[in-house]
Amino acid sequence: MKRLTGTVQEISDVLAADYAAYSQAQNDVDDIVSSIISNVRANGDSALAEYAQKFDGMIPERLEVSRETIARAFDEIDPAVLTALEHAKANIESYHKHQVEKGFVDTETDGVVRGQLVLPIEKVGVYVPGGTAAYPSSVLMNVLPAKIAGVPEIYMVTPPQVNFNPAILVAAALSGVTKIYQVGGAQAIAALAYGTQTIPKVDKITGPGNVFVATAKKQVFGQVGIDMIAGPSEIGVIADASANASYVAADLLSQAEHDKLARAILVTNSVALADAVDLALSEQLESLPRKAIAYESIVQNGRTIVTDTIDDMFALMNDIAPEHLEIAMDNAIEYLPKVKHAGSIFLGHFTSEPIGDYYAGTNHVLPTSGTSRFYSALGVYDFVKRSQFTYYSQDAVAKASKDITTLAYSEGLEGHARAIEIRDEQA
Amino acid sequence: MKRLTGTVQEISDVLAADYAAYSQAQNDVDDIVSSIISNVRANGDSALAEYAQKFDGMIPERLEVSRETIARAFDEIDPAVLTALEHAKANIESYHKHQVEKGFVDTETDGVVRGQLVLPIEKVGVYVPGGTAAYPSSVLMNVLPAKIAGVPEIYMVTPPQVNFNPAILVAAALSGVTKIYQVGGAQAIAALAYGTQTIPKVDKITGPGNVFVATAKKQVFGQVGIDMIAGPSEIGVIADASANASYVAADLLSQAEHDKLARAILVTNSVALADAVDLALSEQLESLPRKAIAYESIVQNGRTIVTDTIDDMFALMNDIAPEHLEIAMDNAIEYLPKVKHAGSIFLGHFTSEPIGDYYAGTNHVLPTSGTSRFYSALGVYDFVKRSQFTYYSQDAVAKASKDITTLAYSEGLEGHARAIEIRDEQA
Repeated sequence: MKRLTGTVQEISDVLAADYAAYSQAQNDVDDIVSSIISNVRANGDSALAEYAQKFDGMIPERLEVSRETIARAFDEIDPAVLTALEHAKANIESYHKHQVEKGFVDTETDGVVRGQLVLPIEKVGVYVPGGTAAYPSSVLMNVLPAKIAGVPEIYMVTPPQVNFNPAILVAAALSGVTKIYQVGGAQAIAALAYGTQTIPKVDKITGPGNVFVATAKKQVFGQVGIDMIAGPSEIGVIADASANASYVAADLLSQAEHDKLARAILVTNSVALADAVDLALSEQLESLPRKAIAYESIVQNGRTIVTDTIDDMFALMNDIAPEHLEIAMDNAIEYLPKVKHAGSIFLGHFTSEPIGDYYAGTNHVLPTSGTSRFYSALGVYDFVKRSQFTYYSQDAVAKASKDITTLAYSEGLEGHARAIEIRDEQA
Repeated sequence: MKRLTGTVQEISDVLAADYAAYSQAQNDVDDIVSSIISNVRANGDSALAEYAQKFDGMIPERLEVSRETIARAFDEIDPAVLTALEHAKANIESYHKHQVEKGFVDTETDGVVRGQLVLPIEKVGVYVPGGTAAYPSSVLMNVLPAKIAGVPEIYMVTPPQVNFNPAILVAAALSGVTKIYQVGGAQAIAALAYGTQTIPKVDKITGPGNVFVATAKKQVFGQVGIDMIAGPSEIGVIADASANASYVAADLLSQAEHDKLARAILVTNSVALADAVDLALSEQLESLPRKAIAYESIVQNGRTIVTDTIDDMFALMNDIAPEHLEIAMDNAIEYLPKVKHAGSIFLGHFTSEPIGDYYAGTNHVLPTSGTSRFYSALGVYDFVKRSQFTYYSQDAVAKASKDITTLAYSEGLEGHARAIEIRDEQA
């Protein structure tokens, strides 16, 4: 991989330039997507049929995937895959249940009750890509947190197929999707955001997709809630001399094989390890089925950063704010307090990142491109909203009256003051 | 107010048409804003000076508001306003402390540790409008939750002024803003999102603003986090025959006076109350300083919905999903379970909505235009992000290996499978 050395600031500047080169070529997509959204808003199902013909090469007989098709998927699925999905489901549920949030009530002040309700979002749409990027694991990761949050209506959309991947339909059924519609691309996002004759308007849309899907999500944001704008996958590995170079290389490749734009970054204080990882990468790449993609990712976007101190290793990795972070060091837990920004952290030599992709139960929908500075993994918290509530007795209003009216008058909002005074006068 | 009657569905359709008429006239703003953002990205501080001259009519000598200017504001502020701000601050803090979230750790499975860290966002920018919409209460409402979340750097931006409203600067100092920069409009949002020579790039931007500010926030969303896209203020009042018509009218006007686009909506099962509220509105409007604005709001956007049953009252109000909801009924708390969507709920005849604007400590930055279906009041949760962590022992990997590799192969990602196998083989 391309190797970087120097001071933290020097390396940080190089990484910033890398990142800037990344965020290009978006503008013409915007126009295409906004015309698709307008058409779906105006023409509903018939616009969906038009795009199905154009982009998917087929118009599905019915938009909704039938119960029979879903039942058949259970017959068709490899039993080992079914078992693995069931185990993954159990782990995802047991992890995400810790995220369930309760409301609170505060009665500290006489005559005053304040509190917060935590209520599920009512209708959620989940986008599931078609083709080679159709991942049953992503269905579980998107739907189960919504289910645990108590969302009553969950609609899945996915591009029309002559033969659906049975694992996708099984994952949807296992995780409790309400209905599945076969519609993909920006038009699916538009349908969920505005509703059509067949597809219900939802309150929030989650799920990964290509650049058209991502752009459509950004455009309908505000009209509905969305999860996040996902970019290519990233893995950052912090490793010292205690790390196993073969393991590290395998983990870097596991993300590199996703996409030639994926970024695999090793930060180490051991030149010997950096050399050994480079060697292992070459060896392991040879026989990898997705070698072409992974090779391109490693050569174009892979980075090995060699630095002197453990503090510098973490400073640089926090600067990257990676989606996935492995700490391949003895006693990795000891370094957890040094992590400031990372979507999901994998501790120690054996906690390979794909454990999180498929099995551990932590979510694999994660903030990319440095957005773990402000975004979190998808979770139960993404499928609830909080409503505040307040009760003031007549006496409590009288006591607060002067402060409230002082502020209202000072802001030039006498109507606000009067709403208090009218109650205080009559007290 | 314009009165609506009929079935829930009929009224719901009328409300939907009202709402559609609302969301117009956005497109040319988009272009202006995106050119401002490009210019600030390219030219930094000098672009800010150019826009200051153009839009604010003055180029501030220094972008940062000096410590001396802030100290002077404490001399200039009305002591009663200072006291009220201090009381409001204490209430906001005591309410929002309930929202502080702890991480968790799960050790249910042998050899497996899973958990979640809750970490503060590092750098936050807060927009504070200038001119008549400069509300010191909003400074407290935006900054204090960030402070309670543990955000170490909070930068406030506000349009340049010859003489700042001392209450704004005092509120900023009381709530612990790191620095204040005098820059407004879309250019301020661009500066916070991308950084300039003087203004640091932040991770998340919150705070209200005009259409240029709101559009800029939407455009930089993804590059940084934003709070929400705020529209005009709304109040929904559910009232029965037990309500005091003068109180209800005063509360409707308190929101109507904000903006002629503000929406005041009364839902009642009592025609007598509806009539009495209309009368009280006319009387109270007469002497209201902001009569022109409030009148326009009430006539254009005010709605009285008369319906038969309490269930219908709540069904319709949930359909509206109002920013502020008052339940002006005896034993209002009894109806809390019927509320599905509302930003902030005010219970009973004395809990006037302005109590929440200024004093109760609940947040007044709330989801508008029906977005309480998926957004929450601004809170401590908006200023943290969660990082997952996972530890698997060598034995735990071996036990999970078959499920993980089965799923990886089924998704065509052999690199993922190999990262597990390499550890299992050597076990």
